[in-house]
Amino acid sequence: MGKRLMSEMTWMEVRDAVDMGEGVILPIGATEQHGPHMPLCTDALLSEKMALDVAKRSNLIVAPTVCYGFRSRPTTGGGQTFPGTTSVRGSTLTAIIMDVVKEFIRTGFRKIVLFNWHFENTNFIYDAAYNVMEDTKQEYPDVKLLIIETPFSKLKPETMEYVFEGQFPGWGIEHASIFETSVMMYVAPNLVNFSKAKDDQAEYYPFYDMLPIPKRITTESGILWKATLASKEKGEVVWKEICENLVNSVNMEFTRWEKEN
Amino acid sequence: MGKRLMSEMTWMEVRDAVDMGEGVILPIGATEQHGPHMPLCTDALLSEKMALDVAKRSNLIVAPTVCYGFRSRPTTGGGQTFPGTTSVRGSTLTAIIMDVVKEFIRTGFRKIVLFNWHFENTNFIYDAAYNVMEDTKQEYPDVKLLIIETPFSKLKPETMEYVFEGQFPGWGIEHASIFETSVMMYVAPNLVNFSKAKDDQAEYYPFYDMLPIPKRITTESGILWKATLASKEKGEVVWKEICENLVNSVNMEFTRWEKEN
Amino acid sequence: MGKRLMSEMTWMEVRDAVDMGEGVILPIGATEQHGPHMPLCTDALLSEKMALDVAKRSNLIVAPTVCYGFRSRPTTGGGQTFPGTTSVRGSTLTAIIMDVVKEFIRTGFRKIVLFNWHFENTNFIYDAAYNVMEDTKQEYPDVKLLIIETPFSKLKPETMEYVFEGQFPGWGIEHASIFETSVMMYVAPNLVNFSKAKDDQAEYYPFYDMLPIPKRITTESGILWKATLASKEKGEVVWKEICENLVNSVNMEFTRWEKEN
Amino acid sequence: MGKRLMSEMTWMEVRDAVDMGEGVILPIGATEQHGPHMPLCTDALLSEKMALDVAKRSNLIVAPTVCYGFRSRPTTGGGQTFPGTTSVRGSTLTAIIMDVVKEFIRTGFRKIVLFNWHFENTNFIYDAAYNVMEDTKQEYPDVKLLIIETPFSKLKPETMEYVFEGQFPGWGIEHASIFETSVMMYVAPNLVNFSKAKDDQAEYYPFYDMLPIPKRITTESGILWKATLASKEKGEVVWKEICENLVNSVNMEFTRWEKEN
Amino acid sequence: MGKRLMSEMTWMEVRDAVDMGEGVILPIGATEQHGPHMPLCTDALLSEKMALDVAKRSNLIVAPTVCYGFRSRPTTGGGQTFPGTTSVRGSTLTAIIMDVVKEFIRTGFRKIVLFNWHFENTNFIYDAAYNVMEDTKQEYPDVKLLIIETPFSKLKPETMEYVFEGQFPGWGIEHASIFETSVMMYVAPNLVNFSKAKDDQAEYYPFYDMLPIPKRITTESGILWKATLASKEKGEVVWKEICENLVNSVNMEFTRWEKEN
Amino acid sequence: MGKRLMSEMTWMEVRDAVDMGEGVILPIGATEQHGPHMPLCTDALLSEKMALDVAKRSNLIVAPTVCYGFRSRPTTGGGQTFPGTTSVRGSTLTAIIMDVVKEFIRTGFRKIVLFNWHFENTNFIYDAAYNVMEDTKQEYPDVKLLIIETPFSKLKPETMEYVFEGQFPGWGIEHASIFETSVMMYVAPNLVNFSKAKDDQAEYYPFYDMLPIPKRITTESGILWKATLASKEKGEVVWKEICENLVNSVNMEFTRWEKEN
Repeated sequence: MGKRLMSEMTWMEVRDAVDMGEGVILPIGATEQHGPHMPLCTDALLSEKMALDVAKRSNLIVAPTVCYGFRSRPTTGGGQTFPGTTSVRGSTLTAIIMDVVKEFIRTGFRKIVLFNWHFENTNFIYDAAYNVMEDTKQEYPDVKLLIIETPFSKLKPETMEYVFEGQFPGWGIEHASIFETSVMMYVAPNLVNFSKAKDDQAEYYPFYDMLPIPKRITTESGILWKATLASKEKGEVVWKEICENLVNSVNMEFTRWEKEN
Repeated sequence: MGKRLMSEMTWMEVRDAVDMGEGVILPIGATEQHGPHMPLCTDALLSEKMALDVAKRSNLIVAPTVCYGFRSRPTTGGGQTFPGTTSVRGSTLTAIIMDVVKEFIRTGFRKIVLFNWHFENTNFIYDAAYNVMEDTKQEYPDVKLLIIETPFSKLKPETMEYVFEGQFPGWGIEHASIFETSVMMYVAPNLVNFSKAKDDQAEYYPFYDMLPIPKRITTESGILWKATLASKEKGEVVWKEICENLVNSVNMEFTRWEKEN
Repeated sequence: MGKRLMSEMTWMEVRDAVDMGEGVILPIGATEQHGPHMPLCTDALLSEKMALDVAKRSNLIVAPTVCYGFRSRPTTGGGQTFPGTTSVRGSTLTAIIMDVVKEFIRTGFRKIVLFNWHFENTNFIYDAAYNVMEDTKQEYPDVKLLIIETPFSKLKPETMEYVFEGQFPGWGIEHASIFETSVMMYVAPNLVNFSKAKDDQAEYYPFYDMLPIPKRITTESGILWKATLASKEKGEVVWKEICENLVNSVNMEFTRWEKEN
Repeated sequence: MGKRLMSEMTWMEVRDAVDMGEGVILPIGATEQHGPHMPLCTDALLSEKMALDVAKRSNLIVAPTVCYGFRSRPTTGGGQTFPGTTSVRGSTLTAIIMDVVKEFIRTGFRKIVLFNWHFENTNFIYDAAYNVMEDTKQEYPDVKLLIIETPFSKLKPETMEYVFEGQFPGWGIEHASIFETSVMMYVAPNLVNFSKAKDDQAEYYPFYDMLPIPKRITTESGILWKATLASKEKGEVVWKEICENLVNSVNMEFTRWEKEN
Repeated sequence: MGKRLMSEMTWMEVRDAVDMGEGVILPIGATEQHGPHMPLCTDALLSEKMALDVAKRSNLIVAPTVCYGFRSRPTTGGGQTFPGTTSVRGSTLTAIIMDVVKEFIRTGFRKIVLFNWHFENTNFIYDAAYNVMEDTKQEYPDVKLLIIETPFSKLKPETMEYVFEGQFPGWGIEHASIFETSVMMYVAPNLVNFSKAKDDQAEYYPFYDMLPIPKRITTESGILWKATLASKEKGEVVWKEICENLVNSVNMEFTRWEKEN
Repeated sequence: MGKRLMSEMTWMEVRDAVDMGEGVILPIGATEQHGPHMPLCTDALLSEKMALDVAKRSNLIVAPTVCYGFRSRPTTGGGQTFPGTTSVRGSTLTAIIMDVVKEFIRTGFRKIVLFNWHFENTNFIYDAAYNVMEDTKQEYPDVKLLIIETPFSKLKPETMEYVFEGQFPGWGIEHASIFETSVMMYVAPNLVNFSKAKDDQAEYYPFYDMLPIPKRITTESGILWKATLASKEKGEVVWKEICENLVNSVNMEFTRWEKEN
């Protein structure tokens, strides 16, 4: 039972995985600016890497990543004015996920995890999941869907202190900044050009949004906060904490669901 | 400049408002369970009432409320297993808002505020707003859209202390609980049956979601936290703080936009 | 069994209504110009008020009103050139109704009435109703849908004589005129500014339609016929006749359906 | 200027027609039961034949007929329980018309007539027409659309008397009955099997609709009223009156529009 | 078993055909330029005529033809720059076919053939067919769909030699040229103006496509190859070979399917 | 000008590429069974690798691959009965491509190549491309789209002879067989388990399609023809020929387009 990436498996290997009772996890990311020091695939890559790490410890197969996400917003991703940011409409995102999850079900999977690493995808994923359940519940009443729209809700206080050094600005603004840069340095160091990392800040970050996007609520660099405080070591700490937490949750939930049936 | 509710105005009064440079605010809510003590219209009503209070101080007309929202989720609204909760698909919500905003633009409004009071509507509203801007920017390049998907991001520390008495559980879970009950007691006391308010809690509130919805992550009552700590006085304090904040934001943003053009 | 407005009920009260075998009625209206003397909400308000009057005598709960309707047409509503008229595409209207009716069914309602007061909504409502039946008939074979796209087909001859005084121009053109003004004076007198009522008329009212809309087939005021002949007394007569008729129909149909099953 | 049917023309002939300033008319019908004596194509055929007769006298080309219409309704077409009736969703009908009209515009037509002979298509056609105008007005500001959703609104009193012999039941119910049978006997006698014509009637014809369709509001034969009173002579009279009326309207409207520009 | 065209049958005749176990065939074509010598309906007409010839020998009813097809492409149909070519979006084509096939199923047909004569419709038809099967398989598990997106894959070598005289350019380019012109001369000679037939050729025919369409990959006439080599006799030969082949396939497949059940 | 993969570039690098006049190529593939010896990502991987090889010699950036394609068909991909095959509806594929191409345009790209390696995606891609051009031509009149739905139309005769050894069965059936296996052995040898390659064949391969899918028209292994004749050397020959051909086409077309403007 070596392979975990569905893309690299043959159909027979997938069939065998289904027969063994394995589940499937769908990484969902984005193609979005992440400052001058990180690649557009940051969200897609982090989603896929974490899904893989979780999969290894949760009896899951990792499906090909949904790499185009919903439109970037100024106060959480810089917004749609950056070249390179390549987004889809909400209805498109919902359609992809619906179709793919229905195919998982046809293939035989009954434990399905949707794993997202891009704030703006929130609710579209849930919509897709709910629609699929409505459409399939009569024919496949035993499907279980775990919808993870944010990879975590909070970190341990000591982790927060270690990572942010007292300068935590809120998760929304933490785009291409300390947290994400650290994590990328840990899992994909060759894709980070740390010499270009900088600290940046919009004039202010409103709790609302505006169109057309005024310059004052986003930054020139695409970094929304401090990136220079990042380090590979910090990345490792949070990655492992998040992963551990996810593995526990996935295993616990499917176990409980099984017992309940 | 008496009337504020577009529904009660004649077309000539709306035309005159446009000619005077007034804007329009669209309240967006939901029809969703709010425990045994509050009505299904809670989100729609709060959205409309707040929009009206803001409108009076920001030169805005209040459009008819979008009273059906996106699907309720267990850890923020109890979820779609409650009878009475009456939700729409995400694509439907997006469609309504798109169409209505385009009509505002045709009518002549150039300052448009989308005001939401239902967490689950997030991103669908932004999707609608973005789509409209794409579709209309050539013909109407001077439209400004303010998209307020959450009525506030935080309250003053002293307000938090006063309202929650040290027991703040996070905003998601604060459904039909201290905050919302207090606010309803202030703005619509006749719709609150406080004698039925109770404290409740799910076994746990995960940061992810599950379908089909397991009982362990929602409550029997639909109250997700402590409702008994609510009071009209608390409601008044938070209502006024939120309103004040919104009025300042709306006025400030449109003023700055105008200056920039 | 006091409350009739679903919006003001708690989820438990709705559940109890379902358990008692009650049905639900969905008022569908529009936000459309109704001359210089009546508000944009006229169709939405009349739909809701009538639904409520019917509900009280037919064991129905009144759901929140669909207040944005399909595009206004020149010869029946003045058309889409009036500011303030705020309409949605047909597909949007269909989507809202489909979603909401499916939620009624999930909630447990089996007697569902769709009640419309806006000519232009015709057929979109039926499309929605038909789609829902197709989608749900396997899981919920016992749902009954009553689709009332026009509140009545004709009035008694003596009522016609009394109301129109020999000047009945056809129902299409009767927009914001004698009939509607009278009814509004009866059910919502505070929203009618009768001093602004006037008689108006397009150059002609063709049986077809045109785009872009030529001025010659609509009026400047938005009143399509004689509004000055309206009176509260007339409104009361027709309101009661329509209501009586609807109550009889609703009760008769559900009774017969029940007997047939 | 011989050919009138676009389907039989070459692309060069269409191009020449456009260059001569001719317009285009799109017949819209249905595939719907019309009793035991008339074919399913009745609405499509009548729509096409009338469009052709009008086209000959109005400088129009006749486009291929939209032969699948919106769902049949019990009190105007027998309803969707009849085998053979082959209908489309409203959104499908709207989509076809939108696409086709946009192609007319790309081809160069500026005078476009939508001509319908199937009550249930109402409003979907207008929706399509309106959408097209919204989408194209910037690029093609000179397009004129005439939307004829019903072929006529009324006939001359003497015609009514002659055709119905005092037994006119209302136009909705006049399905596969005196009027339609007469017209078919005139324009397509070989498709009418008059020996199977009969008089029929539902228990009653409500002004509302019901799903699932109860037998009591439709007929067994699909004829909704008296078909035996039909005759070819009656058909000729009404056909010519309707045609004359349409020709006058089409010519008058395009002439006035031209003058106004 | 006289009539074959569903459009000319009454609903009772269709019902009887269903009761006799007959199937239905849906011709799908296009409204597309076919050079200066052939009409826009060429694909629709050939589709319908062939369907009829097949139907007579396969126990099938011929449904009304889908006469608007997907967008013409330069190297297979001349492309969307020709006036007269009147196409629909892919989603529209899929919607029509889905709706119509569902109605066939409701009517009672269990053997359904989709027969296409327009290369560009490929895959949209399959999408529609697949969607219908997904939507209906629970309620109607015994439906069989034969999807014929190209009328044949190859002709006999001797036929190829006879028809093309050694100048076969590939099927894509064979638009409005030898093959199609010959066939039209055989089945609809009155619609072919052979005196206008000519030989034509683009600068080159790439295996890819381009937008906007450059003149170099299409022709001025709309004929993509040699039309002058066509003859009625050639048309008869290929028509009969194609028909024979189709009849054998249809009969063989439904027979085998029946045996397998 | 080092990086070619957009996913690995920063937004600033993409902006610079645009400023240098570079174009973008979007690989489109599928997640589809490719026999017991090749992975599900075969089409996605080949599409991406070839796009990259072309990009290096054509001044293009390679966008993230669309890795879910339209539904597999029995005679070209084995069909939708294989577990692991994970497909989307046609409308979903069209939506993704539309959205992504519009973002390319917003980012500033004017030379856009859509490159597909999955037969079933045909026409959906063209539909997307055409829709985008319609939607954007007013705002961005200088966009050029090259739509490559098949990577080649034919190979040199000597290549055909070398690769197929006289056993070429037609391109459709060449799924997971000599050609594709050879190419995969050349570009991704570690993903091919050649020891599991075998020769296989359906009872027959009809030129039409059937639903539900009968076993007789597909194979058990998913290989549709002879895979054992594949070799890395053959793969290299065809890969280089295809690549050379594509590079020439892309460079030639954009050069000519530029000259024409």
